[in-house]
Amino acid sequence: MTDFAATKAQFHLPEGMIYLDGNSLGPLPRATAARVAQTVTAEWGDMLITAWNKAQWMDKPMRVGDRIARLIGAEAGHVVMGDTLSIKVYQALASCLEMNPTRKVILSDTGNFPSDLYMAEGLCRTLGNGYTLKTVAPEDVLDAIDDTIAVTMITEVDYRTGRRHDMAAITARAHQHGALTIWDLAHSAGAFQVELAKCNVDFAVGCTYKYLNSGPGGPAFIYVAPRHAEVARPALSGWQGHAAPFAFDLDYRPATGAERMRVGTPPILQLAALEASLDIWDSVDMGALRKTALALQDQFIAGIEAACPTLTLATPRAHQERGSQVSFRHPEGYAIMQAMIARGVIGDFRAPDIIRCGFIPLFIDASDVAKAVEIIADIMQNNLWDRPEYKTRAKVT
Amino acid sequence: MTDFAATKAQFHLPEGMIYLDGNSLGPLPRATAARVAQTVTAEWGDMLITAWNKAQWMDKPMRVGDRIARLIGAEAGHVVMGDTLSIKVYQALASCLEMNPTRKVILSDTGNFPSDLYMAEGLCRTLGNGYTLKTVAPEDVLDAIDDTIAVTMITEVDYRTGRRHDMAAITARAHQHGALTIWDLAHSAGAFQVELAKCNVDFAVGCTYKYLNSGPGGPAFIYVAPRHAEVARPALSGWQGHAAPFAFDLDYRPATGAERMRVGTPPILQLAALEASLDIWDSVDMGALRKTALALQDQFIAGIEAACPTLTLATPRAHQERGSQVSFRHPEGYAIMQAMIARGVIGDFRAPDIIRCGFIPLFIDASDVAKAVEIIADIMQNNLWDRPEYKTRAKVT
Repeated sequence: MTDFAATKAQFHLPEGMIYLDGNSLGPLPRATAARVAQTVTAEWGDMLITAWNKAQWMDKPMRVGDRIARLIGAEAGHVVMGDTLSIKVYQALASCLEMNPTRKVILSDTGNFPSDLYMAEGLCRTLGNGYTLKTVAPEDVLDAIDDTIAVTMITEVDYRTGRRHDMAAITARAHQHGALTIWDLAHSAGAFQVELAKCNVDFAVGCTYKYLNSGPGGPAFIYVAPRHAEVARPALSGWQGHAAPFAFDLDYRPATGAERMRVGTPPILQLAALEASLDIWDSVDMGALRKTALALQDQFIAGIEAACPTLTLATPRAHQERGSQVSFRHPEGYAIMQAMIARGVIGDFRAPDIIRCGFIPLFIDASDVAKAVEIIADIMQNNLWDRPEYKTRAKVT
Repeated sequence: MTDFAATKAQFHLPEGMIYLDGNSLGPLPRATAARVAQTVTAEWGDMLITAWNKAQWMDKPMRVGDRIARLIGAEAGHVVMGDTLSIKVYQALASCLEMNPTRKVILSDTGNFPSDLYMAEGLCRTLGNGYTLKTVAPEDVLDAIDDTIAVTMITEVDYRTGRRHDMAAITARAHQHGALTIWDLAHSAGAFQVELAKCNVDFAVGCTYKYLNSGPGGPAFIYVAPRHAEVARPALSGWQGHAAPFAFDLDYRPATGAERMRVGTPPILQLAALEASLDIWDSVDMGALRKTALALQDQFIAGIEAACPTLTLATPRAHQERGSQVSFRHPEGYAIMQAMIARGVIGDFRAPDIIRCGFIPLFIDASDVAKAVEIIADIMQNNLWDRPEYKTRAKVT
């Protein structure tokens, strides 16, 4: 059983701040600065080019991938790190379309993170020949899977509402209809135990700077099911995914398995930061994490609903339909979030009207939730959000 | 006039090492560790999500791009950082093929870095419809440009021999024949003054972990000529290249100019390391750099040729045909490089027989070159490379 008071002590959290935004950018583990500094000075600085071997930089994308694998229920050796989530979406999509060549439709939903949709649009335009992206409402995904669908591209947890799709059911239905599946785990990896292998998922992708606390711009990951490891084609076929990158052959020959999804030189400093965080994650009991996260969410929902009748819950009430965030709607959501931030309760606003808060037991506890509820209640009951400076929108929220 | 003794003092170079491999992984500037640490602790740690605005993380890819622009002769506002060089090659290629829709041939040469060729192969396969990559010998590029070529994809300086292509001549001929041009500046940016605008180049790409000392896996850059800024389509159309990323529109609408080539969340830690190095680069006189680099190369060539008759120069003798490296061939090149490394002279081996050394005045001076020549002469004259442990190949060299 994980002692979450002990994990909380492993994070740097600014004095007086209640950080309900680890689902956007995870906080800094206390060990990270030293780990990154060591990589900069003792590895890059002292070993220079020889660090690719001596400090095992070259193998890092696969070794770190194995540590992510446990959290997402993936087989060891089938997760690799690199690039950004959008790039990994593109690779997974291109692979699936080529593996299902008689079909032309990518199915997604309007609750998906827009970048996934943009990458799919871009790929369809590059492919031409009638390839299209079809988007339906989130609740209509299951029914929209038919024999025309080449691949489903679904983000398991909605970045706005926190609504969680049924991975097992959608994957099973896709397979019944001859479609492949891609799951985006941006708001799943580190939020709860994901079961890719048990659900028979084909491809999965995710980022690490949210729940996995790798820092701004941390590397993404991609999972390729073992049964596809030798057939999936990495459309972005860079030298690091070559079977023998240092042979410098003129022709591309993919590496074995997920490693072929590597593209260019891996971001070693960002990977070092991720490794420091995974030192914490390696000993987290995912069952305890989920149980505690749901309790914190329930506490928040009950507190806000009791005190703030104008805030409307956007997140499903059923536990199995939730990720690790709770969202409320309000027409003045932007100003309310600015007022919260001014009082030290950090969440984020998502257009058009979503107030989003993440509940991550690694560094948030029941007393934090109680304080957050108290502050939000004060803001709402006294209309403290109704000030011009809270209504002027910055470029980024 | 740059005082290179002063710049050398700004780098951490291990005691007793002569580092002739800054063209593979640049050495660590002394200021980098503190800059990265500040980004980790004062920005990520203390500001958390608000650092995207407060620490101006969001604009970093364009602001840093402007600092690269001076070194490559690009117009301000038309260079953006992100991803890896291979990804940027793909974006440039996909844009050019779409902008030149009646043609199907990408022209490159067999001296190009393989990853560029692999990315082109991958794109051609995705496009289908007869798209092909044509490669010719480096010396045949100019003559191979005809009215069938959609785009030339040329790395200016050959990673093995150091041979430098004539950017102005190839670009002019490409344009005469209705082809677009992509220049890979991996071994150019920071090696000498590049003149993209003067040469009328269409697209350029490059990496920063070589001459620009951004550290392992530092971000790449892409240049889009101003005349193409509104028509180039970013095939990898991620949310950070959207005109309004935080509007979360369901449809993609590209940002203005080079910024549309952004894809996912930028790697802030790696960008911080690059910024520390650019603090040095900002005051480097590129004319003085080139003059000094050529003098160091000439000193090395003369010294090696006088002392080591079995080493054959692979780099052109004419100054205008060289980058900032010198390569020699020898059938036992791998073992010779291992013997050099054992004696503290770090270069690298490139299959099948290339011994490659970079001469970068920022941290290499004439006394380093003299010492390196002396050590290599000793190794060659006394066959010190002829030991079994130098012949066993590691995975990475």
